[in-house]
Amino acid sequence: MSPTMMEHSTLTLDAKYCNSSSSSSSSDNDKKTLNRPSVSADEARKKAEILSGQYGTNLLLMGAALMLALAHHNPSIKEDHLLAFVTCLMVLQLLWMMWYVLLRRRHRSALTDKDVHATTCWIRGGLTLLALLSLIMDVFRIGYYVGYQSCVSAVLGVYPVIHATHTIAQVHFLWFHIKDVIKSFETFERFGVIHAVFTNLLLWCNGVMSEAEHFLNNHKRRLSALGYGNLTIVHTEPGCNCSTSTCSIFSSSLYYLYPFNIEYHIFVSAMLFVMWKNIGRTIELSSNRKRLATKTQGLTLGPVLGLVAFASTIGILVVYITHVEGSLQTRRSAISMFYIYGIVMLVFMCSACASGLLIYRADRMPPDTSENPSRQLDTELLFGSSMGSWFMSWCSIVAVLGATSSPPYRWTNLTYSLLVVLEKCTQNLFIIESLYRRQEVAGRDDPELAASPQIFSVESALAPPYNGIFNRAYDTPDKACVAVDNEQEDHGRAYKCPRKSSDHPLPSGNQAPNIKRRILKNIAVFLIMGNISLWILPAFGCRPQYENGLEQETFGFSTWTTTLNFAVPLNLFYRMHSVASLFEVFRRV
Amino acid sequence: MSPTMMEHSTLTLDAKYCNSSSSSSSSDNDKKTLNRPSVSADEARKKAEILSGQYGTNLLLMGAALMLALAHHNPSIKEDHLLAFVTCLMVLQLLWMMWYVLLRRRHRSALTDKDVHATTCWIRGGLTLLALLSLIMDVFRIGYYVGYQSCVSAVLGVYPVIHATHTIAQVHFLWFHIKDVIKSFETFERFGVIHAVFTNLLLWCNGVMSEAEHFLNNHKRRLSALGYGNLTIVHTEPGCNCSTSTCSIFSSSLYYLYPFNIEYHIFVSAMLFVMWKNIGRTIELSSNRKRLATKTQGLTLGPVLGLVAFASTIGILVVYITHVEGSLQTRRSAISMFYIYGIVMLVFMCSACASGLLIYRADRMPPDTSENPSRQLDTELLFGSSMGSWFMSWCSIVAVLGATSSPPYRWTNLTYSLLVVLEKCTQNLFIIESLYRRQEVAGRDDPELAASPQIFSVESALAPPYNGIFNRAYDTPDKACVAVDNEQEDHGRAYKCPRKSSDHPLPSGNQAPNIKRRILKNIAVFLIMGNISLWILPAFGCRPQYENGLEQETFGFSTWTTTLNFAVPLNLFYRMHSVASLFEVFRRV
Repeated sequence: MSPTMMEHSTLTLDAKYCNSSSSSSSSDNDKKTLNRPSVSADEARKKAEILSGQYGTNLLLMGAALMLALAHHNPSIKEDHLLAFVTCLMVLQLLWMMWYVLLRRRHRSALTDKDVHATTCWIRGGLTLLALLSLIMDVFRIGYYVGYQSCVSAVLGVYPVIHATHTIAQVHFLWFHIKDVIKSFETFERFGVIHAVFTNLLLWCNGVMSEAEHFLNNHKRRLSALGYGNLTIVHTEPGCNCSTSTCSIFSSSLYYLYPFNIEYHIFVSAMLFVMWKNIGRTIELSSNRKRLATKTQGLTLGPVLGLVAFASTIGILVVYITHVEGSLQTRRSAISMFYIYGIVMLVFMCSACASGLLIYRADRMPPDTSENPSRQLDTELLFGSSMGSWFMSWCSIVAVLGATSSPPYRWTNLTYSLLVVLEKCTQNLFIIESLYRRQEVAGRDDPELAASPQIFSVESALAPPYNGIFNRAYDTPDKACVAVDNEQEDHGRAYKCPRKSSDHPLPSGNQAPNIKRRILKNIAVFLIMGNISLWILPAFGCRPQYENGLEQETFGFSTWTTTLNFAVPLNLFYRMHSVASLFEVFRRV
Repeated sequence: MSPTMMEHSTLTLDAKYCNSSSSSSSSDNDKKTLNRPSVSADEARKKAEILSGQYGTNLLLMGAALMLALAHHNPSIKEDHLLAFVTCLMVLQLLWMMWYVLLRRRHRSALTDKDVHATTCWIRGGLTLLALLSLIMDVFRIGYYVGYQSCVSAVLGVYPVIHATHTIAQVHFLWFHIKDVIKSFETFERFGVIHAVFTNLLLWCNGVMSEAEHFLNNHKRRLSALGYGNLTIVHTEPGCNCSTSTCSIFSSSLYYLYPFNIEYHIFVSAMLFVMWKNIGRTIELSSNRKRLATKTQGLTLGPVLGLVAFASTIGILVVYITHVEGSLQTRRSAISMFYIYGIVMLVFMCSACASGLLIYRADRMPPDTSENPSRQLDTELLFGSSMGSWFMSWCSIVAVLGATSSPPYRWTNLTYSLLVVLEKCTQNLFIIESLYRRQEVAGRDDPELAASPQIFSVESALAPPYNGIFNRAYDTPDKACVAVDNEQEDHGRAYKCPRKSSDHPLPSGNQAPNIKRRILKNIAVFLIMGNISLWILPAFGCRPQYENGLEQETFGFSTWTTTLNFAVPLNLFYRMHSVASLFEVFRRV
């Protein structure tokens, strides 16, 4: 297509825009219904954002300070204090959620906007499952409290009850209100939402800390049994005997449920954060449509390979957990096995990501640049949570290169660590590129969609989105359309205004886009299974970074365990988060 | 003004837009000169951003892993390794800068865009000063190396030479190229710039680590002298005698220069980051004008109070440093003195910020929402670097509340910590609100400006910027103007196209805006001096958090010093950064 033709199509759109904008501005009533944000509202929004952000951050830091004090096992600061603090925050959140739900019920007439990108059904379903496991955990905690009732603080009984109530209420909130775009009581709601975000983040931190402490105690016990040094294990057993026979079952089962509870809270806080970002936002109708169901034909290699990976992971987990408790010899072989397994796994995953990227390179499609806080957050979280694992890997590399001893897994550790860095880089690239691609229209043979004029569909492939000088011209007509739409629902907006380019079926310059899409779907499924596998291993105690001794030698026991206590939870979150993102990728391609 | 009138003015603009856009699109040549970003360029940009971001992050983490290994004083990883690594990075950056400068020289004909917001003259001047101090540091390092030449690694000699070259080249780069908006070889340059960002960040980390270690060793020596436990002090003295008489002078003077070197590197990396964000950006001419000089009349109370604060700070610093080495009694009195001084200081600063915010509240002005990566980064850095200090404060609060001992400064410590949290919150709010306010036109009586049609100046006060539905309509005409401007320079753009709202003199609804502006200027000056004071104290060794014993008791020596090693540099950066931001505020109001 020649530049002159491009100019021509721009001209056409410009002319269209003039028509649509003048027609929309001619009707005064349209505008008043749009609650056009005023200058002071915008200023107030900025201020409320900063204020509430500072409030939330300080809440988290307060809790973190308490946790840090707890970690020192100082007699004056006990777990009760932390739990009491967290319980207060949960009660506050409960009150706010109640207020929010009641307000929405009372003013049901006032329609609230919904951001369909905020979450999907399957994410909420997954979270409900995690919430159920969290509830079981609360039941165990209550059982434990009942057993030791005579000698432990009442906070230990109140906390699980409140936590259970909080979980139930929050799941309800997630199902019915998380997509709301709040437009009334903005400042107050902003504080409410950010309070909820940071309460969940604090609960996540608390879970991570308990889990890390438990793991570390196990690890120290193992090291002591093997005769390594004299490590102090802090026992936090209550001072009396359990009155029921189930206490030890409760306390030991708890730790198998922690990983789920941890993921539950961090996911909820990410979703609430998107809700916070959405407050007062003006949603563009055009980019706010529900997608049709995903087709799953042609899925064979991906799921098969994924299942093989998953099955071998379970095998590795069992062998590792049993062998690592044994003699030095079996320990070392278990660690070697883990690294070799990891290398194979990561090589496959890297190649999957690389081939996905190659397919994208061959198949040029215009990027989707519509505003979407949820996707923006996804990108940032992927990047941010990769850091933990990258740092861990670089530490391992430094340790291997500087090590004086040379255990059998020295060089496999190096390869594994390098591959971890590489795999996260390519996977991030693949996920981010997939999410920022314009989604192909699911209902390609939908007659209504096919009716859109050809000139726009040609243009859409050429139109640079948003960041040029003329780009906003493409954007504006759509906004004008929104004005019309709101008033004249069900009157067929397709005929009223030019479609936004992202809605048009894209011209496929390739012979077989379906094959490419199928390959991409297979890749996504395989990567999902791979990431689940790499989540399961550390989540259930397979952490050779603690056991292999190389890093410990270079960094010292306490520095290295502290590093791991930060990095491992981040890595776990990364894996779970990429599973969610990849599922989104799977649905989009 | 009634809503109907508002509608009317919108209509007018819409009509204007149609004219200007169609007139601009009618001339084909205009557009080609604008290097309109193509779809693939946009995609490539996104990809290059992620890739280079990942590269930079991994560079930093690699360096951090080396530093962590160094902190353990493991014999296999020495300082030489880290210095060699950093030297390589600096050499790479030097090569890139040379390439960049030569390329620009050769293609001088191709005009590059400049982002005037990227930096200001006085920031560059300040950085040049800091760079000079860094150069002196390098000279000391070379002198030290010459003295111990026989027994230390050659890396210790190469490093300062390369660092000095790097500093000189970088300052040259800052003066002549930091504002460039790169539009050629984008992907390569992106890697170059991010490499420079992270090299400087690594140099910052290295400086922070050396400084912290030095401070910690001094602290341990002091504690040992007072008879507190048996702390191991690691000596890193070379194994031979100095061949010149000046070695000890060199090594002890070094530590007085560290604070400046540290600030130099972090500031440069922030500026380079803005340059990285600017790559491939399309600068809006309208928001990219230089400001006129600032008037400084009516400045009395602010500077006077500021100077008083500054002078008392120097007094406090001297007294503290001398007293803290003494007996338990003088130590305690020094710490008490510090806290009381801090409380007075922070109360004044809080009230200054609060009155500034009140003035803003009374004097409603439309926010300035033009794109500006530099300001965006400023906001994020203020927020991010506050976290260190907030965390430190919350830890102190937990420690005070949970303490079993009760030194005389227990409750002053609590008050001080609470005030630190409050002061940072209000100051952030004040700075961010100031930066996001539309700047008042400096040349209010400029005849050309006064000639702009009244309808626009009235409208500008009402026009919601950017985030509404109709807002882009205000934005687009300006963009069309840019197209016209580029071709018809010097033909008076004021008459060609509607002025962007941010250019118009704002209607002042107040009787005496000058008084308000004067008060704000005084507040800004006072806050600048206050922040400098609060930077000087910890930068030169006045850190009661190490000495007071309360936090140490609650968190344990190693945990607390690790926390401080992270939090204190962040706090130092916060203070310096807010000085820079407040200076910007001072110039804007």
